[in-house]
Amino acid sequence: MLSDRLSEQLPPPPRPQGGYVPAVRHGDLVVTAGMTPRVDGALTHRGRVGEDVSVEDARSAAAIAVANALSAAVSVLEGAQLERVVHLAVYVNAAEGFEQHTAVADGASARLQELLGEAGAASRAAVGVTSLPGGACVEVVLTCGVAPA
Amino acid sequence: MLSDRLSEQLPPPPRPQGGYVPAVRHGDLVVTAGMTPRVDGALTHRGRVGEDVSVEDARSAAAIAVANALSAAVSVLEGAQLERVVHLAVYVNAAEGFEQHTAVADGASARLQELLGEAGAASRAAVGVTSLPGGACVEVVLTCGVAPA
Amino acid sequence: MLSDRLSEQLPPPPRPQGGYVPAVRHGDLVVTAGMTPRVDGALTHRGRVGEDVSVEDARSAAAIAVANALSAAVSVLEGAQLERVVHLAVYVNAAEGFEQHTAVADGASARLQELLGEAGAASRAAVGVTSLPGGACVEVVLTCGVAPA
Repeated sequence: MLSDRLSEQLPPPPRPQGGYVPAVRHGDLVVTAGMTPRVDGALTHRGRVGEDVSVEDARSAAAIAVANALSAAVSVLEGAQLERVVHLAVYVNAAEGFEQHTAVADGASARLQELLGEAGAASRAAVGVTSLPGGACVEVVLTCGVAPA
Repeated sequence: MLSDRLSEQLPPPPRPQGGYVPAVRHGDLVVTAGMTPRVDGALTHRGRVGEDVSVEDARSAAAIAVANALSAAVSVLEGAQLERVVHLAVYVNAAEGFEQHTAVADGASARLQELLGEAGAASRAAVGVTSLPGGACVEVVLTCGVAPA
Repeated sequence: MLSDRLSEQLPPPPRPQGGYVPAVRHGDLVVTAGMTPRVDGALTHRGRVGEDVSVEDARSAAAIAVANALSAAVSVLEGAQLERVVHLAVYVNAAEGFEQHTAVADGASARLQELLGEAGAASRAAVGVTSLPGGACVEVVLTCGVAPA
């Protein structure tokens, strides 16, 4: 059972920072909220990648954020089975002219595949944004496919 | 009937600004186009949040935009029943270093929950972008879950 | 058969630039990775729209990117039938104050409708971002609806 093994390896589901819920399941999909690199509720990596934050640190931040997102997804499964990650969106708080979004996003993708194996191989979009909530350096959103239990 | 009450409270479905449609239903999902704060077709809030537009005004703008998005979603239901909002994406036209995306996006989330109650409690992602179509200060996209009629 | 005619008109499915897959099918949806304007693997349009890249060139770039995305979607159909495009996300590498996202995104929408006819009329979101992978001027993501074969 994928979900059972998983829950031991994941952080607790993140507490929402505003008027939203961490994840919603509808039919055969689960979509998470945007998740930032928080541990015990506190941001671990703030600032702009390529200026305040190195690409290597941003990779670590993306890995933390995606584990939070996966934890949120698992928290709404209610007996359904996580089949695979369908899409991973990675928003990088990046300076103009930054080009290494792929390297940052690979931090999240590698973590997903550590946690889920082949089921973590997702389509992915990475873009650079001006700013993120609370000054986070990266934010991720997961869309997961589920099968009924 | 959720959809019947709703239609009285919503603005008319927005007219597309380009070569797209306001919303598409496929299976048990409806996904809207990106919606800006327009009333009778005209943008109500232009500029960058944190510079030209206050956080409070941006909250109002987000509420207007999300009502347009919900109207677009309802316009393609064709007898299907809106079950809940699955995901709300909020793009904030924001200065570098802006951190209050959550406060802006809460304007949209609060409006959704006024209109839909618990069905409006969605997963949500908010990010800061450099610019938006027509100079809008905020843009939202809704993904909704529907059940066959 | 939509898919048969299509495959002759599309470029080969793009090779991923990092730890992700070009598209995933789950249930009645296919979601692609973010696709940039690449021909034979090389970016054709780099830089910021409104500064380094004209709106007209960015429209062409968006058309190239969306053909790559559609090729990725088609490559995972495995006998399922592409019914329509549900959503087209267009990220424009744009200067502050840029307002012509709609004109750029229309380049992608027009190409989709050339390739798919009415099935290419999608909901669409266009936003301006600070930077994109490899310095691309535009990136697109497609969500498509499929029916079982």
